[in-house]
Amino acid sequence: MVQTHRSRVHQIGSRSDIRVPFQEILLHDSPDGRANPPLLRYDTAGPGGDREAGLAPLRRVWIDERDDTEIYAGRARSARDDGRAAARAGEGHPAHPAEGTPVRRARPGQVVTQRQYAREATITPEMEFAAIREGVPAAVVRDELAAGRAILPANINHPESEPMLIGSRFLVKINANIGNSSLSSTRPTSVADEVGKLEWATRWGADTVMDLSTGADIHATRSWIIRNSPVPIGTVPIYQALEKVDGVAERLSWEVYRDTVIEQAEQGVDYMTVHAGVLLRYVPMTIRRTTGIVSRGGSILAAWCLAHHEENFLYTHFEDLCSLFATYDVAFSLGDGLRPGSIADANDEAQMSELRTLGELTEVAWAHGVQVMVEGPGHVPMHKIADNVRLQQQYCHGAPFYTLGPLTTDVAPGYDHITSAIGAAMIGWGGTAMLCYVTPKEHLGLPDREDVKAGVIAYKIAAHAADLAKGHAGAQAWDDALSKARFEFRWEDQFELSLDPDTARAYHDETLPAAPAKTAHFCSMCGPKFCSMRISHDLRRSAGTEPEPDTGTGTEVTVELQAAMAQKAAEFRAAGGDVYVPVD
Amino acid sequence: MVQTHRSRVHQIGSRSDIRVPFQEILLHDSPDGRANPPLLRYDTAGPGGDREAGLAPLRRVWIDERDDTEIYAGRARSARDDGRAAARAGEGHPAHPAEGTPVRRARPGQVVTQRQYAREATITPEMEFAAIREGVPAAVVRDELAAGRAILPANINHPESEPMLIGSRFLVKINANIGNSSLSSTRPTSVADEVGKLEWATRWGADTVMDLSTGADIHATRSWIIRNSPVPIGTVPIYQALEKVDGVAERLSWEVYRDTVIEQAEQGVDYMTVHAGVLLRYVPMTIRRTTGIVSRGGSILAAWCLAHHEENFLYTHFEDLCSLFATYDVAFSLGDGLRPGSIADANDEAQMSELRTLGELTEVAWAHGVQVMVEGPGHVPMHKIADNVRLQQQYCHGAPFYTLGPLTTDVAPGYDHITSAIGAAMIGWGGTAMLCYVTPKEHLGLPDREDVKAGVIAYKIAAHAADLAKGHAGAQAWDDALSKARFEFRWEDQFELSLDPDTARAYHDETLPAAPAKTAHFCSMCGPKFCSMRISHDLRRSAGTEPEPDTGTGTEVTVELQAAMAQKAAEFRAAGGDVYVPVD
Repeated sequence: MVQTHRSRVHQIGSRSDIRVPFQEILLHDSPDGRANPPLLRYDTAGPGGDREAGLAPLRRVWIDERDDTEIYAGRARSARDDGRAAARAGEGHPAHPAEGTPVRRARPGQVVTQRQYAREATITPEMEFAAIREGVPAAVVRDELAAGRAILPANINHPESEPMLIGSRFLVKINANIGNSSLSSTRPTSVADEVGKLEWATRWGADTVMDLSTGADIHATRSWIIRNSPVPIGTVPIYQALEKVDGVAERLSWEVYRDTVIEQAEQGVDYMTVHAGVLLRYVPMTIRRTTGIVSRGGSILAAWCLAHHEENFLYTHFEDLCSLFATYDVAFSLGDGLRPGSIADANDEAQMSELRTLGELTEVAWAHGVQVMVEGPGHVPMHKIADNVRLQQQYCHGAPFYTLGPLTTDVAPGYDHITSAIGAAMIGWGGTAMLCYVTPKEHLGLPDREDVKAGVIAYKIAAHAADLAKGHAGAQAWDDALSKARFEFRWEDQFELSLDPDTARAYHDETLPAAPAKTAHFCSMCGPKFCSMRISHDLRRSAGTEPEPDTGTGTEVTVELQAAMAQKAAEFRAAGGDVYVPVD
Repeated sequence: MVQTHRSRVHQIGSRSDIRVPFQEILLHDSPDGRANPPLLRYDTAGPGGDREAGLAPLRRVWIDERDDTEIYAGRARSARDDGRAAARAGEGHPAHPAEGTPVRRARPGQVVTQRQYAREATITPEMEFAAIREGVPAAVVRDELAAGRAILPANINHPESEPMLIGSRFLVKINANIGNSSLSSTRPTSVADEVGKLEWATRWGADTVMDLSTGADIHATRSWIIRNSPVPIGTVPIYQALEKVDGVAERLSWEVYRDTVIEQAEQGVDYMTVHAGVLLRYVPMTIRRTTGIVSRGGSILAAWCLAHHEENFLYTHFEDLCSLFATYDVAFSLGDGLRPGSIADANDEAQMSELRTLGELTEVAWAHGVQVMVEGPGHVPMHKIADNVRLQQQYCHGAPFYTLGPLTTDVAPGYDHITSAIGAAMIGWGGTAMLCYVTPKEHLGLPDREDVKAGVIAYKIAAHAADLAKGHAGAQAWDDALSKARFEFRWEDQFELSLDPDTARAYHDETLPAAPAKTAHFCSMCGPKFCSMRISHDLRRSAGTEPEPDTGTGTEVTVELQAAMAQKAAEFRAAGGDVYVPVD
């Protein structure tokens, strides 16, 4: 019998530097002596390490080998990059020591995206790495990327990231949002807090993280996050661009935005939310809504459009943006700036008009070789969820869908991780590739560490429930391993196999704190006399399919448990094997 | 402008003693000065009051007026009714002072069920009461009861209960389980704890409560619960019957069970879970399952069947049971003793065989005039949920379905209120009439007060999401009122309209603690400069559809907020009405 434990193990690919991490959970033998194979789980936690050093740039050699990029000096940094307070003070927070060493871009005329390589029929080490993670042939990954049905976000300036896939043929992914706010974060900011949230979110299973900082030291915060992130990092550049124009939307311009995109691309941002579908003519469609425009980016661009009475500069400059993105392999996350913010507004004209425009833009980006996913709502009642993913897949030609929730009711502020996990599970089943988490604080305040965990766990549940419902190969093995452990009263295995072992163990301890209870042959719900699963085992033994149980070797059993177990044993002996007559 | 507050108000029916409770939430005016009508919500909390006195028997006069019942001495109480410890001590815990005053049963030859009255085309005061609660004509209630598509659980010995409906044409209901356990509750038990859980569960919206006590003082605990319960109380009589035979399943008999049913019916239990579909020939179907039999009742009866090699006595005596239930108007909750306990076992032969038998038994009970609902699983992946409710409706001729969850994955012990809220919302949308809650402690331990609340809130979310998806008349008014309050920055209204105002307010306070923040014209997520909903209002004002906002009268604003709001005001003044050019 082995000790239960978890560790990070690696599967090696076709070359020794393709080392794909998994979480391995060793299990105890069954009561009948049969061994239980270790469970391998997809792992997002990364290798960890010293934050000052940053993570090892595992993809650098692959990028170098392709020989299609060049190293350059990079954009000059300005105190303004860290927001207005830094600009006033004349200096920003120190960036991560590893920032800008080196800054890389495509050589002139080159498109250095995973999409481009896939279309050229190349299987990159990144694709192979991700294929091993997903348990599929690398050719499938290449084909899905080439068709645009999946993306592999991998900015060439974020070589620390472990390649992963967002696409409906692969495991459903989840994103966690972090970042400081102008309300809560005055200088000096705690950059360490945000790095801590990153590590915490990926520990619990976040597949990507978006840094939505809008407060002080935006540039520096992002620098520390990216250099320590094993997962792709997403941003919404319009937030920082707005800070550069002192928060006045009408002073935004393509030039300020472009500068911000280059700044962030050089840092290594892997995907960017771009609200290029908020067109001038769609804005009036929101006037009669119950909750107007609830996307920050959407409302900023709507304000800009109306202030200038011009078309959204992200739309008019979209091809310029594509060229930039192709230079660094930044993926588009085409933002749904007009998403519904209430049940009343779900699936309305404004939302669907924008979605059709996002479909047009998807094709433009693809033509430039750029990877694309498309964002979706928001607040949607259950009966309108299926239409969202169906229409997105239709309008956007199969590009991956990335949805916030959706929340299936508006009435439970404080519990929107639950109102939205319901919608997220359903839309994931329907084919959504990535689910953006919602924390309990949504609509009410800024998430702290516990909220981040609550959001990630709720969304891991939604994503896994979706994987099960999609019949994803291998998804059910995890459920089966846990349920078998539960039925066999392998408590420690049950805890270790849990999405959150800490909480599972703590809850069990509240009812049955003694260590021997962890080997007890009954559930903590029903107690020794009454346990349905114990009776099930008695039935199996009487049918001759199972041996007598090991009665345990506990030494610190409570008096109550001791008495109960003695009584059970006495009953068992008195009854012998004749209690339950085998049936034919 | 009124102060936000909630109160319990009553709508009066066709007679002055039909006083139907609602929770009324008064709302502030909109910024444009328009009044917002109060929101009336279905209310389960009951009138409250002194536990020693118990609730007023509001239905007693209606029962008397029907003149079809008689008062009798009732079954003699035994110390054994309170379990083995009480039997050894020779005396039980004192029952509630109001117990047995009087005990009532049908006169010989009478069937005193709401089903029977409905079939005789009578609209009882109970039906009218429930119709007003649901906002439907009383004739609809009568017709649904007569057809068996709904039940109105209303034991004549529980006149304190406020009539309610369980049926797919009505609002989706939720049940909360409470009760002590042989593991945690040694004598003296805290009967008050269980009454406290009842009050707590109904405060948060539980429509019915099941007392699943298996520990000490079972009879007395139930007595205090029923006399203080404004909602129907359900039980699983086999649990208490097993205690009467010292926990040895094979010593159970029809006689012990019948005695227990009479004991509980005299106390006023409104519905009882009866595992009459666990047939001898179905038990072997569970042997190869991943998790065998996980229903306690199911496993007890499977053990009995095998020990005696006889058919389940609940099945062979089912007509006798119908006669008893017709005497008190106890409704059947036909138990799913063979429900799947893991994803692997969902929708298997054992489960479906039992369901077909429950369909047969439904018709038998109906022929006796007895009300019936049917219990369902359990653990079911999303893609197998729809079949569960479809087949139940088909096999059981439209009788209401009452499901535990289902849990959509096994991998998240500690979070099964969430894994199951996903399944509950979906199966509720599919037509399930009542959802039995699952708490975070499921599989791990016994729920405490906070777990009860977490379970009830998660299930209120699931039930309401289902009501929305079903297009239930009036359901969306609640969402719309809350979203309008949110968009208009009526923070106090948003809190009061929340499923859990305490938590919503507390979360908001963490980010923006000052009282004036509750009237701030921006969200706590984005801050004053960046608030998408504020920008939406600016757009509306620029379109001439909305007046300038009241800038508030806060006196204790934090320095940070003051500066931010001053800047916003300055910006607003500087920009005048010309910032956003109206569009055509």
